[in-house]
Amino acid sequence: MPTVFVSAQAAKSASFSMAGLSSDCKNNALKAIADALTDNRNKIVEENKKDLAEAERTGLAIPLQKRLLFDEDKIRAVVEGIYSLMTLRDPVGRQLLGTEMDEGLSLYRETCPIGVIGIIFESRPDALVQIASLCLKAGNAALLKGGSEAAHTNRILTEIIASATIEAGIPGGWISLLESRSDVAEMLKLDDLIDLIIPRGSNAFVQYIMQNTAIPVLGHADGVCHVYVHEKADPAMAVRLVVDSKTQYVAVCNAAETLLIDESVAPVLLPVLAKALEEKHVILHGCEKARAIWPMADVDEWHHEYLDYEMSVHVVSDEKEAAAHINKYGSGHTDAIITGDEETALRFMQDVDSGSVMWNCSTRFSDGFKYGFGAEVGISTSKIHARGPVGLEGLVTYKYKLFGNGQIVEDYAAGRKHFTHRPIPLKDEK
Amino acid sequence: MPTVFVSAQAAKSASFSMAGLSSDCKNNALKAIADALTDNRNKIVEENKKDLAEAERTGLAIPLQKRLLFDEDKIRAVVEGIYSLMTLRDPVGRQLLGTEMDEGLSLYRETCPIGVIGIIFESRPDALVQIASLCLKAGNAALLKGGSEAAHTNRILTEIIASATIEAGIPGGWISLLESRSDVAEMLKLDDLIDLIIPRGSNAFVQYIMQNTAIPVLGHADGVCHVYVHEKADPAMAVRLVVDSKTQYVAVCNAAETLLIDESVAPVLLPVLAKALEEKHVILHGCEKARAIWPMADVDEWHHEYLDYEMSVHVVSDEKEAAAHINKYGSGHTDAIITGDEETALRFMQDVDSGSVMWNCSTRFSDGFKYGFGAEVGISTSKIHARGPVGLEGLVTYKYKLFGNGQIVEDYAAGRKHFTHRPIPLKDEK
Repeated sequence: MPTVFVSAQAAKSASFSMAGLSSDCKNNALKAIADALTDNRNKIVEENKKDLAEAERTGLAIPLQKRLLFDEDKIRAVVEGIYSLMTLRDPVGRQLLGTEMDEGLSLYRETCPIGVIGIIFESRPDALVQIASLCLKAGNAALLKGGSEAAHTNRILTEIIASATIEAGIPGGWISLLESRSDVAEMLKLDDLIDLIIPRGSNAFVQYIMQNTAIPVLGHADGVCHVYVHEKADPAMAVRLVVDSKTQYVAVCNAAETLLIDESVAPVLLPVLAKALEEKHVILHGCEKARAIWPMADVDEWHHEYLDYEMSVHVVSDEKEAAAHINKYGSGHTDAIITGDEETALRFMQDVDSGSVMWNCSTRFSDGFKYGFGAEVGISTSKIHARGPVGLEGLVTYKYKLFGNGQIVEDYAAGRKHFTHRPIPLKDEK
Repeated sequence: MPTVFVSAQAAKSASFSMAGLSSDCKNNALKAIADALTDNRNKIVEENKKDLAEAERTGLAIPLQKRLLFDEDKIRAVVEGIYSLMTLRDPVGRQLLGTEMDEGLSLYRETCPIGVIGIIFESRPDALVQIASLCLKAGNAALLKGGSEAAHTNRILTEIIASATIEAGIPGGWISLLESRSDVAEMLKLDDLIDLIIPRGSNAFVQYIMQNTAIPVLGHADGVCHVYVHEKADPAMAVRLVVDSKTQYVAVCNAAETLLIDESVAPVLLPVLAKALEEKHVILHGCEKARAIWPMADVDEWHHEYLDYEMSVHVVSDEKEAAAHINKYGSGHTDAIITGDEETALRFMQDVDSGSVMWNCSTRFSDGFKYGFGAEVGISTSKIHARGPVGLEGLVTYKYKLFGNGQIVEDYAAGRKHFTHRPIPLKDEK
C-alpha cells in the first residue's frame, strides 16, 4: 500500500489535469463506472459477504450489519444514481461574472474544481460510490477512507472505479482508498495537498475531524432542529407539521428535536400536540411551564439531538424569545415556524441564523434531493463556502480569468487610461 | 475595558438584529460615520499626534511612522471611500436561486450577513475605518484589533464610529476595539462567537493566524506571482508587461516575483528582458540555464516573495513545465502568460491553480477596485468561500428560505404528492 502522503501527492498531480476534462469525458467515465459495477456485481457481492461474515463473527450491532449489506439491489440503486448524475449540468466552466475593465481587457469569474477532496465515511459502501462519482463529475480527485468493517467491499469498489475511469481517460491516481485508522490522522495534516474534507458519520466523529485539521471541512456535527408554534398557528396544521418533523424519520439530522410553543396558546394547543406525539410513541421532556400543562419528564439539556422518539418542549413568550432560544441552543441546521401571520414568519426567517429556515412546512424537507439539486454532497452548518443542503456546486470553486492585449497598470495609475467596468453578457446557460 | 469574550458576546447578539437592517438604515449610518469623522477631524488629528510622538520617541521605523500618519488628507480620503461605499448595492437580501418544489412550496436561496467578523490589522488607521464600514454595509458586527502603535488614533476612531452609528439605529455592541496582544490569542479561540477572521499584515503574521484558529480565515499569507513568457510572445509586449508586473509597485502582493521563459526564445529574449529590468534597478536571481545566458545571482528558493526590486528567473521547456512550476512554488495568488497563441493561453489559464490567471496583461491588475468590485475586503488564496480579490460579497453568506402552506414530507415519501422543481424567476436585480 502506498502511504497517505504518496496517494495525496498523486491525487494533487491528477487534479491539475482533471480541471481541463470535458463534460463528455467525465460523463463517459461515469457511464464506465456504472457498466463496470453492473458487470462485476457477482464479484462485489462475494467480497461484501466476506465483510458480512466478519461482522457477524465479531458481533457488530445489527443496524450496522444492515448498513454494511451491499447486494444486487443496492448495486442497481447506485448505478441508477450514477445515470441521474450524468444528466446533471457540468458544474465546471460556468461563467459567474463578466466585466469589461477597458477596451480589450476582459475579466471573467469562472467555476473550476476545488482540487483534492478527502472523504471519510462510515460503514455504508453506497457512500463510496456516490461520493466518488460526485467528485468526478466536478473534476476533483478523491481520497476515500471507509469504515474498516467494509474493507473488502470498499477495496473491490475502488479497484473497479479506478480501472474503469482510467480506461475512460481520467488521469491515474485521481482516486485512492485509505485503509487504516492512522491514515485519517495522517490525512488531516496534509493541508498543502488536500483542499477540502467531507466527513460523514456520527456527531462525535465529525466534531473530532473539525477540531483536528487546518483543512476546511464541509459538513455538520449535529442537527438540533426546532419547530416553533406561534400563537397564530392553525392548530390542525401545527399537529400535522410537528408530527411529520419529529416522526417521519427520527434517525436523521433534519428531524425536529425541540418544540417551541407560544405561552398564549400552550394551555390549549400543547395538550393536543402532546397527545398526537405520544400516539406516535414520542417521549416528551419539557420546561417547567410545559410540565405544568401536560405531564412529561424534565429537560437535561436544550442542545440535545435525540435522533429517536423523544422531543424537548419549551414554552416561550414570543417570536423574539423563540429565535433567541434557537440561535443559542440550535445547531444552525434547519428551523421552522408555524403561523398564519406573514410578518412574524418573515421576521423569524430573518432572525434565525440557520442554513434552512421554514414557514408552515416540515423540517424534513431540508435535503439536497428534495430541494431539487439532483445530488447531495452533504449538509453544511458552516457559514463559509457552502451552507445548508449542498449540491454539486459545493464541490467547485472559481477563479478569475483576465484577457488582455498588452495592458499595463502604470497607464491607469498615471491617468493615461481609465477603467470602464462595463458588464459583459455571460455565455447562455446550458 | 470589557474582556474579549464579553465584547464578542455583545457583537454576536448585535449581529442577529443587524441581519434585518434596511439598506437605507445602513447607508444613513455610513453617512453618520462620514459626518462624524469630518466634524471631529481636529480631535482625531490631535490623538494621532500622540501616537506619532510616541512612535518617534521609541524609534519606530520611518516607513511605519509614515503609515501611522492620519491627517486631514487621510480623513478626507476615508470619508470619500465611505461615500462611494454608500452607492454600492446592498449585498444582503439578494435572491440567488428560486425553486417551486411543489404548488405552494417555494424555496429561495438568499444572501444574509455572515455574523461576527474579527479583523486584525497593522498600523494604518485608515484600515480601521475602511473595514468597519465594509462590515456595516454587509450587516456584520466587527471586532477590531489594530496595532498598539496606533492606540490613541484607533480608540478615538472606534468611539466616533460607535456613537455615530448607534445614534443612527445600529444596535450597540456591533463594533468593539481590542487593544492588547493577548486579546488576539483570546479572539482566535472564540469559534462559537466569531464567524470569520480577516487578518491584514505581514506573511508571518497571517500564517500565524491561519495556523492558530478553528475560525475560517479570509486572506493570503503571500503573493508569489509569476509572469510566463511563452515562445510565441510578442517581444515588445513581453518587456512592457514584465517590467510593469515587477516594478509598477514592488511592495504589494500582486507584484511579480518570478519570470518564467521558454527555452527556445530565452537566448534572444532574456537579455532584452534582463536589460529592461536592470534599467529599473531590479536584481535578478536565475536558474543555471538563465545564468548561462545573462550574468545573474543564483536562486535560493523558488517560493520567495521579494516585495522589492529583485526577481527570480527560470528557463522552462514549455507551458506544461511552467504551469507545474507555478502550481508547485506559487502561492495561488496571480499568474500571467504572455503569448500570441490562444490555445496555449487558454490551457495555461486552466492548468494554473490560482485565484487570478491572466493572458497578455500585468499581474498588477489583480485587485478588487481594478476588477470593478467598488470595494476590496481582501485577496483570498483559499479556495473555499471567496477566492481572488474579494468585494462586499465576501462578507455575506446565504440561507435557504422555504415557504409552505402545511406540506409534510410523509405525503411525498408515500407517493401521494410529487416534487415539481420548477425554477422561480428571481426578483429584478436592483
